[in-house]
Amino acid sequence: MRRLIFLLVTAALIAGVFVTMTAKARAGHADGGAAPYVTTMPPGYRDWKFISVAHEEAGLNSFSAVLGNDVAIKAYRARTLPYPDGTIIVALHYSFVPSEENDKVFGKPQSFVAGAPTNVQFMIKDSKKYAVTGGWGFGHFKDGKPADATFMQPCFPCHALDKNDDMVFTHYAP
Amino acid sequence: MRRLIFLLVTAALIAGVFVTMTAKARAGHADGGAAPYVTTMPPGYRDWKFISVAHEEAGLNSFSAVLGNDVAIKAYRARTLPYPDGTIIVALHYSFVPSEENDKVFGKPQSFVAGAPTNVQFMIKDSKKYAVTGGWGFGHFKDGKPADATFMQPCFPCHALDKNDDMVFTHYAP
Repeated sequence: MRRLIFLLVTAALIAGVFVTMTAKARAGHADGGAAPYVTTMPPGYRDWKFISVAHEEAGLNSFSAVLGNDVAIKAYRARTLPYPDGTIIVALHYSFVPSEENDKVFGKPQSFVAGAPTNVQFMIKDSKKYAVTGGWGFGHFKDGKPADATFMQPCFPCHALDKNDDMVFTHYAP
Repeated sequence: MRRLIFLLVTAALIAGVFVTMTAKARAGHADGGAAPYVTTMPPGYRDWKFISVAHEEAGLNSFSAVLGNDVAIKAYRARTLPYPDGTIIVALHYSFVPSEENDKVFGKPQSFVAGAPTNVQFMIKDSKKYAVTGGWGFGHFKDGKPADATFMQPCFPCHALDKNDDMVFTHYAP
């Protein structure tokens, strides 16, 4: 019986948290004020400094370059954790494609380059605005348009698994 | 007989060109003035703007990020060809390694990241200083130290194959 009560209470708590988060997400998405995810692209990100590169296989087949604004770069280089408010990290994603042009020069198939851009993702640190998602606002933009609340839901729980790096997977490439 | 004379003259010309180039290379390497390859790393390159990413398989197994100084970025974005004097392009090379940390989160092996840095390469446009190598000075640095003249010899003939892009293989990733 105790176990059943415990389970019911737990279920109610989870449901409550979910409803609260969803309500906040809706409100945030609507008024753009307290959004738990990012709905506007920070300007100038394509000019930011380089953090590192990554490649994901499986269904993603993506090639990414991760850049940071000045606050991010300073924090990365000084190994400041948690990242301070104002940190913005952007991942530019492209398709991962073989380069016929380079392979011709090398004389064998070996070269892969960035193909068409697929999406742009952001992590913005604002411990008040994004308090419900660990202080980070997550953003995903395809053709300049933000993803919706449902699409954004897995970002926080997945990044939250990386407890040692304040939820940031990408390490700085020297 | 005519053919023999032609061959001898050709051989002499090739030898002459080679000796001249070698002499210039030696002089350049020694005094740093007219070097046909780059022996000093341009300062501040790690803060330059992002051009694109690449991955080379085969023996290289490299992950690279290509950055450019302001002259390079302006030329890339405006599609200015040939690249103007003052253009500097840098390729930061790392080993291409699987990320156990990311794979754990994804639940399957799919993620590759930048491992240890391997070398840093430069292309510097200076149509006078590097006239004998198409206006480009090539540089290769391992642990901050420049490669020697023998190591640098294949750079120019290989890049010269890319006639449509003023010898620059990397395209701009939007």
